[in-house]
Amino acid sequence: MSKQALLIIADGMGDNPIPDLNGLTPLEYALTPNLTALAKQGLFGNVHPVQPGVPVGTDVGHLAIFGYDPYDVYTGRGPIEAYGAGIELLPTDIAFRGNFATVDDEFTVLDRRAGRINTGTHELAEALDGIVLSNGTKVIVRPLSAHRVAVVLRGENLSEHVSTTDPGTAKEGETVQKSIALNEESDAIHTADAINELTEKMFSVLSLHPVNAERSLQGMPPANMILLRGIGREIQAPKITTTLGIRGACIAGDRTVLGIARMAGFDVYHRDSFTAGHDTDFIAKADLAIEQLKSGYDWVVLHIKSPDLAGHDCQPMIKVSSAIKLDMMLGHILRHIDLNECFVGYTSDHSTPCMRRDHSGDPVPTFFAGGNVRSLPLENFGEKYVTHGSLNNLTARDFFRIQMDHLGVVAKLGA
Amino acid sequence: MSKQALLIIADGMGDNPIPDLNGLTPLEYALTPNLTALAKQGLFGNVHPVQPGVPVGTDVGHLAIFGYDPYDVYTGRGPIEAYGAGIELLPTDIAFRGNFATVDDEFTVLDRRAGRINTGTHELAEALDGIVLSNGTKVIVRPLSAHRVAVVLRGENLSEHVSTTDPGTAKEGETVQKSIALNEESDAIHTADAINELTEKMFSVLSLHPVNAERSLQGMPPANMILLRGIGREIQAPKITTTLGIRGACIAGDRTVLGIARMAGFDVYHRDSFTAGHDTDFIAKADLAIEQLKSGYDWVVLHIKSPDLAGHDCQPMIKVSSAIKLDMMLGHILRHIDLNECFVGYTSDHSTPCMRRDHSGDPVPTFFAGGNVRSLPLENFGEKYVTHGSLNNLTARDFFRIQMDHLGVVAKLGA
Repeated sequence: MSKQALLIIADGMGDNPIPDLNGLTPLEYALTPNLTALAKQGLFGNVHPVQPGVPVGTDVGHLAIFGYDPYDVYTGRGPIEAYGAGIELLPTDIAFRGNFATVDDEFTVLDRRAGRINTGTHELAEALDGIVLSNGTKVIVRPLSAHRVAVVLRGENLSEHVSTTDPGTAKEGETVQKSIALNEESDAIHTADAINELTEKMFSVLSLHPVNAERSLQGMPPANMILLRGIGREIQAPKITTTLGIRGACIAGDRTVLGIARMAGFDVYHRDSFTAGHDTDFIAKADLAIEQLKSGYDWVVLHIKSPDLAGHDCQPMIKVSSAIKLDMMLGHILRHIDLNECFVGYTSDHSTPCMRRDHSGDPVPTFFAGGNVRSLPLENFGEKYVTHGSLNNLTARDFFRIQMDHLGVVAKLGA
Repeated sequence: MSKQALLIIADGMGDNPIPDLNGLTPLEYALTPNLTALAKQGLFGNVHPVQPGVPVGTDVGHLAIFGYDPYDVYTGRGPIEAYGAGIELLPTDIAFRGNFATVDDEFTVLDRRAGRINTGTHELAEALDGIVLSNGTKVIVRPLSAHRVAVVLRGENLSEHVSTTDPGTAKEGETVQKSIALNEESDAIHTADAINELTEKMFSVLSLHPVNAERSLQGMPPANMILLRGIGREIQAPKITTTLGIRGACIAGDRTVLGIARMAGFDVYHRDSFTAGHDTDFIAKADLAIEQLKSGYDWVVLHIKSPDLAGHDCQPMIKVSSAIKLDMMLGHILRHIDLNECFVGYTSDHSTPCMRRDHSGDPVPTFFAGGNVRSLPLENFGEKYVTHGSLNNLTARDFFRIQMDHLGVVAKLGA
């Protein structure tokens, strides 16, 4: 029987020493007997998401975890959101992430999240979905969480070399930007025209929509525009599941992660109780992972968003609590799998240090255990404890290859 | 308030075990309580200047410390010496480093340093500066220390693909070399002609110069030629200060380091007491660094040349003494800055092992401390002690990016 592997991704768990935690990081501070016991049975170290000192987004961090070179394949967040929304992109499509927003008649942005709208977005998206622009380009619109939305243009001769319409964060008072061609090719000019036509059409359709009439009655800002950003194309690299001939499953609450996993060729599993918040159901995710391993997937990836949120919000004790819950989840999993048959790995897409409240370029504690993987003594699991390990200072792509090699699916170079 | 950083560069400090020092390196042997105390509050390790096993020059080592890929941007030492001499290069200029030398009537080199001339070089350089060659190329000449001089050709259609005129070290008895085009392009042919014309002109002008008449009277060899080498163009990469949006200050006695710092966009600070020798004023440099940090620079770089000289001269105890002085300087600095507001880093541009008397490819002890940077236990500061640290086996460019990431100026990849 060939081996399987489980990878647990703790989004943004990597951190730096925090005074309130006696100068420890949340992961060092938390009591995590299962993480420690498993790490000391395997390879471990602090792994760089892309390269030392470069902070990455969740999207780029996950591309690297799934074995891609983000410098090669990453064009923008749009295509990832589109996949997250369930749109299967064609190579000729261009995709955006968007915000439902409130604008006035002259397209001045009054609220770039339309009052953080969270109901009626399905209806609003549906009203725009399927619009055909004058040059024949078809518009695909799918709602994501809250004010977020995925927008795809499908047609001939579309170019990603155009500017987008979102004036940016905290730019209320500026107008929706005109799209401009960023080179002199006719495709770019034609695409910018299509985007500007779409901006007008969205305003016409959304302004008259019953959802917005109802919002106005209730004194809420109308969602009468979608601001577009993150333009890009589908990643131009083969799905890693195809390249390696493996079946992969990804279990997550976060739409971005699910989108990247789908682009990478994974079957994705989402449940309503996977909230991508602190209240996500850790044990239900674990049970689903165990089930998918039993069903025969070669590689099951289980993603937890909570530590990243705690980092952005500077809540060290919440991050400690995420680490403890994750450790208990791991304990639950270990009671249901055989480490001789199934490797277990752990990593993060990036560090989100609480004191920085944003992603940093610091490397992330990582391990890969099970079977007869090489091992070293380890005092405890966490940033400072794993520095002497064999994965230290490797990159996420190195770590991906190491896992796949233990599954026996990396082609031998030479003979 | 955004954070600041200080970087101390100990030129050539890296070394290998020395029998006379009980098998320790100078840095391991020296009592350096401040270096040790600081290193154990941060990231440390042995860092490779460019890649493992590749010895580098002071110029290339500093390009890497300042974040450049020397394989991309380094063309020759000439442009760096030009910047060190205060010449602001144009992209069309070609630059050389030169030696005042003594030649006979047939251009045979009698002394390639003109008796290590160290007076009158300003007058001699001035006599050549501003010469216009027959094709319209303008000549810029600026004296450096002793027999050293920077020469720049400014004009249309100049090429760096030509040979230079210096026959090389210990080649007395050979003649000044004719410059030859190294490809068939007209620019190269035209540039070689210009250089050969300059060789003739320099001899005519310098031979008749009063400084040389005076030297002859005193029995000293005349400085009647400049031997040219190290041809290159300005680095074709943007200034790192511009790229990252930071203000940088460089405090040094060494002209090469000052030249590279200017090319990289730093404001440079030099005083007469910064001798680039063992007698340099460590405390005055420290005071100037403290002053520049107070004045608001984001990154202040303080360079000490002394350990490199000790390495070249195989003087282990002098190198030990440099390390001790540097440690005392660091102690002085630490009494005037707040580590919560200002990170402190330490590195070298390369190793200059005493037993080798030249640069080697060995990595260099390095640290980065302050704020809430991750830390590890450390017994003492030096080559063998820092091997278990988190910077170990990273490169100088990685180290640069890590410092800049802690300043928060490295752009996030992805979203």
